[in-house]
Amino acid sequence: MMAAKLKTAVMGATGYSGLELTRILERHPLVERPVLLGRNGEVDGLEKSRAKNTVSDLVEIFPELAGKDEYPLQNLSWGELKAAGVELVFLATPHEVSRKVVPEAIAQGLRVIDLSGAWRLKDEGHRAVYGFEDADATMAAALTERAVYGLPELNGDCIRKARLVANPGCYATSVILALAPLLKAGLVDREHGIISDSKSGVSGAGKNASARTHFVSVADNLSAYSVFEHRHLGEIVEQLGLQDEQVTFTPHLLPIPRGILSTIYLRLNDAMAAEEVERLLREFYADRGWVRVFAARRLPEIRYSLHTNYCDLGFCLADDGRRMVMVSCLDNLMKGAAGQAVQNMNLMWGWDAREGLR
Amino acid sequence: MMAAKLKTAVMGATGYSGLELTRILERHPLVERPVLLGRNGEVDGLEKSRAKNTVSDLVEIFPELAGKDEYPLQNLSWGELKAAGVELVFLATPHEVSRKVVPEAIAQGLRVIDLSGAWRLKDEGHRAVYGFEDADATMAAALTERAVYGLPELNGDCIRKARLVANPGCYATSVILALAPLLKAGLVDREHGIISDSKSGVSGAGKNASARTHFVSVADNLSAYSVFEHRHLGEIVEQLGLQDEQVTFTPHLLPIPRGILSTIYLRLNDAMAAEEVERLLREFYADRGWVRVFAARRLPEIRYSLHTNYCDLGFCLADDGRRMVMVSCLDNLMKGAAGQAVQNMNLMWGWDAREGLR
Amino acid sequence: MMAAKLKTAVMGATGYSGLELTRILERHPLVERPVLLGRNGEVDGLEKSRAKNTVSDLVEIFPELAGKDEYPLQNLSWGELKAAGVELVFLATPHEVSRKVVPEAIAQGLRVIDLSGAWRLKDEGHRAVYGFEDADATMAAALTERAVYGLPELNGDCIRKARLVANPGCYATSVILALAPLLKAGLVDREHGIISDSKSGVSGAGKNASARTHFVSVADNLSAYSVFEHRHLGEIVEQLGLQDEQVTFTPHLLPIPRGILSTIYLRLNDAMAAEEVERLLREFYADRGWVRVFAARRLPEIRYSLHTNYCDLGFCLADDGRRMVMVSCLDNLMKGAAGQAVQNMNLMWGWDAREGLR
Amino acid sequence: MMAAKLKTAVMGATGYSGLELTRILERHPLVERPVLLGRNGEVDGLEKSRAKNTVSDLVEIFPELAGKDEYPLQNLSWGELKAAGVELVFLATPHEVSRKVVPEAIAQGLRVIDLSGAWRLKDEGHRAVYGFEDADATMAAALTERAVYGLPELNGDCIRKARLVANPGCYATSVILALAPLLKAGLVDREHGIISDSKSGVSGAGKNASARTHFVSVADNLSAYSVFEHRHLGEIVEQLGLQDEQVTFTPHLLPIPRGILSTIYLRLNDAMAAEEVERLLREFYADRGWVRVFAARRLPEIRYSLHTNYCDLGFCLADDGRRMVMVSCLDNLMKGAAGQAVQNMNLMWGWDAREGLR
Repeated sequence: MMAAKLKTAVMGATGYSGLELTRILERHPLVERPVLLGRNGEVDGLEKSRAKNTVSDLVEIFPELAGKDEYPLQNLSWGELKAAGVELVFLATPHEVSRKVVPEAIAQGLRVIDLSGAWRLKDEGHRAVYGFEDADATMAAALTERAVYGLPELNGDCIRKARLVANPGCYATSVILALAPLLKAGLVDREHGIISDSKSGVSGAGKNASARTHFVSVADNLSAYSVFEHRHLGEIVEQLGLQDEQVTFTPHLLPIPRGILSTIYLRLNDAMAAEEVERLLREFYADRGWVRVFAARRLPEIRYSLHTNYCDLGFCLADDGRRMVMVSCLDNLMKGAAGQAVQNMNLMWGWDAREGLR
Repeated sequence: MMAAKLKTAVMGATGYSGLELTRILERHPLVERPVLLGRNGEVDGLEKSRAKNTVSDLVEIFPELAGKDEYPLQNLSWGELKAAGVELVFLATPHEVSRKVVPEAIAQGLRVIDLSGAWRLKDEGHRAVYGFEDADATMAAALTERAVYGLPELNGDCIRKARLVANPGCYATSVILALAPLLKAGLVDREHGIISDSKSGVSGAGKNASARTHFVSVADNLSAYSVFEHRHLGEIVEQLGLQDEQVTFTPHLLPIPRGILSTIYLRLNDAMAAEEVERLLREFYADRGWVRVFAARRLPEIRYSLHTNYCDLGFCLADDGRRMVMVSCLDNLMKGAAGQAVQNMNLMWGWDAREGLR
Repeated sequence: MMAAKLKTAVMGATGYSGLELTRILERHPLVERPVLLGRNGEVDGLEKSRAKNTVSDLVEIFPELAGKDEYPLQNLSWGELKAAGVELVFLATPHEVSRKVVPEAIAQGLRVIDLSGAWRLKDEGHRAVYGFEDADATMAAALTERAVYGLPELNGDCIRKARLVANPGCYATSVILALAPLLKAGLVDREHGIISDSKSGVSGAGKNASARTHFVSVADNLSAYSVFEHRHLGEIVEQLGLQDEQVTFTPHLLPIPRGILSTIYLRLNDAMAAEEVERLLREFYADRGWVRVFAARRLPEIRYSLHTNYCDLGFCLADDGRRMVMVSCLDNLMKGAAGQAVQNMNLMWGWDAREGLR
Repeated sequence: MMAAKLKTAVMGATGYSGLELTRILERHPLVERPVLLGRNGEVDGLEKSRAKNTVSDLVEIFPELAGKDEYPLQNLSWGELKAAGVELVFLATPHEVSRKVVPEAIAQGLRVIDLSGAWRLKDEGHRAVYGFEDADATMAAALTERAVYGLPELNGDCIRKARLVANPGCYATSVILALAPLLKAGLVDREHGIISDSKSGVSGAGKNASARTHFVSVADNLSAYSVFEHRHLGEIVEQLGLQDEQVTFTPHLLPIPRGILSTIYLRLNDAMAAEEVERLLREFYADRGWVRVFAARRLPEIRYSLHTNYCDLGFCLADDGRRMVMVSCLDNLMKGAAGQAVQNMNLMWGWDAREGLR
């Protein structure tokens, strides 16, 4: 007998991550078509914005959905959501919205996967850059404590039981997955410092139109930004157990719609052979789902992982056996956002990590 | 003895066309570095916007000018402009601003080259799509009458004497220059109708950030827009002496920063040989400056004319000698805007049409 | 009880269409992982090329397949293919290879879907542009006669029973699907002529590296080519029952990897209302699988159909109710090649047209 | 009285650098239109290739030159070149061709600017990666010794007197100009190591069509290559007086036609203030022509220097005052090749460094 499918809701389905998520959920064999909540339809209490989205629907915003039957954004109260049988809410909302909405949802007994940066950071100093203003500071602190950083390859056990999963940042995912095996094995010279020179497609900057995302600004161009002060740095050092000053992280804006490539520079404590490194990486990610390890000196490119949930890892070792360059690639809307969120859901409901993502 | 250089001003230097114009004028051997007027610095009477631009300068907006000495946007009254010896004002402003500013500038005895659509159309019906609200309707009507359509290859004599030049639209330039020789020779079957399938880079849509100009919307994409209702249609039919229904004009948005290619379909009244057509085109544009005629069946591509002031023309003739496909290419910011404006200035001051544009 | 899955083989899996096809077949729930035949592994008789591909495998050519288990190109004789239980062969080979291989495969009792232009044209004049040199002219003529043009929305009944399906050209698919409803209803002024101004991404030009497909030649550019002489013109006129001179077809090379947009110009015999046209299109394609009809004046863009098997149709009608502009979009590797091939397979085996393509 | 213009020749004008060079020389006010020598027209002794280029001309290869008068590639002997009054030969040829041709040209008393890697490296170990096979090893060694590395901002005095200028590599230029001021001032921790994560447009890979430069391989993609083994590493360490293992250099292929951005990571020996660093950079490049230093924390982007001869430098300093990120941008065909070659010519003939490059 077929079990009933899981009922979910997506808030923020009109952004890039939210749309990608909606697309995946629509095809997921174990999930019903998700309820779509307006980005400003923060449910109870935000009456002003309710009217605005009542008439809008996804087809207005994403015409590629035309031809499917109507698929409206809805503004439901938590009670209505519960009554509809929804058990899991995905938030693809700005971090200040997530910070406000999550306590309400959790209080209702819903499980939440939040794609924003609102609940990723444990350290108060790291969190300061977001400037959160919590209505109930005690509650927010408790939730911050309980939130699980949703990187399934590293935190699978905690994710399975989590009520609130903080889905990782796209850049952070590419860097953490590359570094975790070597760092956890104690092979990296932390004092020397680690550099991640990361490059992202424009969808990573979100859907808001600005001078910075104007086609003419991006095409035929490359630019670095937020040097020494990007928000994902906090996630990287917290998850890897590093000090802030041990990681230099430089993001760049690529003239492509999607995809991330991080070129990572580190020094090994002792000289190693390339085969050893390759074996260590392969063993670390054996049976961990969505990481592909390339053979030594064969480097991944952005296009290999586009429209997939893979994070691809490759590396080169200098003749001295100590200087190492790693290349980590993923699709920022998939493994860097929506795909990873679905992978987390799969874990939370005890399903195969690849369900709905193949 | 060296003659004194011409003094000019540019209003709207922060837009794409205005910046390109400023760059050309800076290198023009017969022109002083132009005075830059803030886009909203519409001189007298618009006090509210004056303060806004006082502190801004081009380097804030176009960092590629950094390293040059400071180059501020100024807010000058007409009297101050005249006192500074300025004789010519370029307007790279929205059409409603141009419609308001031009009467004032002309009244001051300044000559004006307006890059907007404000003064291009003689026919009231065509003009209606712009929805102009003229403060002084009589004055506006008189200026509309006197304004010269600034297509130097066709209207050179009038441009030389003009006080107000309406610089043509970018699409319109590509279509009119392709069709003029054959139409003026009476060789085209007008009743059959002419089609221009035109494609433009994104800078043609202006600098305003919107969902439509967001990198992610444009990249890897192509879209048609404003079918049967684009504003440039009026210019095309007026300049070529056609009826509205004789021209079907379809613009498309290309995933490139700049450049236009128009593919034009027409039927000849009588069968011709390709050599005849080529000869006719070459003779028409001999000594007319900035049109390059390609040999029969050799078609121009957008890249050939990028960063130049050329309009490139090529064509293919069907075996029947009557069905004809023309391809017309230009750089929308050069021959389609700023370069053509400078070409017009060259004519107005009796200089070589190539001065400052080589 | 689960029926045994269909066994297939793909020849030419290293080209763009062949790879896309392989990807789809790998996920198709009713098909086994396909056997991959080397592009030059034309089975019996071409011994010289056998050795060349023995050692190569898809991972060498498409590194994005790394991490999957090994997936070699094989060089099998027809006998070996049959012995392995293969019933259907896809050819993603150059047309001259398809012309040679198809007679052998059909003689073995295999069914064939050929993605090249080898078997699409019935008219000898149209076929002449390919310059086929058939070893057995009688056999080739018989097969040409029996081959079914694989456009499922139009020729579904014949495709179901076909042994040899000639998968349509990418441009041709976009044009034929747009025009078929109106032409078959007798509403189009054929004498006036039809124009298709079509634009394609670079994968349509194939994987061979050349000056024309070099990144620097294509980026920031647009070019028209093969005016009045593109091979797909023959398919268009044959399938639509038109005369050659009634269609002007102009392909252009877009600076995007994949996707086609055709802007089609026609004149209706009598004035119609937009609603009538929309209704006619919707009714024509109701229950025909993979065509989406947009509401009047809402035009498809290339990105809407990318990575899907849809052909999207939209249109605008001039005020006179007779001049009409249609826009037809599809992904040249999906509905324009591999996706359509799988759709044809679905019909041939009596499956749902959407199987494996969702 | 007007002095006679310099007569020059360009060998390899059909490549990207050679064409850019030809364009600049055509507009240079102190230089005659250059003689164009066929890429294979290696003058005396290579008779076989002479015929091949006799009929070809630039318009065949670069159609954007159509409309200008004919501009043939010529195959002249050294004697003919001298008789024509040519004093300077630019080589935009593959390094093995340059290695063969330079000794002949120098022997004839011609001055040479070579854009290839043939004469840039003094260290035999570095040179080994090129695998030169010199016909006359003694002569080659002598020329290698005498060749001046043509980076005008650093080696101006030697360039002025040089007979043979080895024009620097594009990547190397971006890295050396960024690092020279700090290294020469002894402020950088060399033992810690320096990293340059460099990204280049596709024209840097040359005009040969290959799978790697195919539009579909490059678009929507980013890839690293030649990690730890790129040829430009030798130039960087030699010019900066570093050890090989002190520099890690990782080039990447960007989906843009032209432009380089190098993100450079270093550690200062002692903490500095950003203002000190900025002042040091500005003073170093005062009056050195073509380097623009940006204010602290304002980073250059590739588009700022496109189609100019500038190398743009910007930087960020970490809170500790020691970790530093520099960003260096240039146009690989201008400051990275042809523009720099012209700048070198300007020095060699005692002209202003900006002549012909504005």
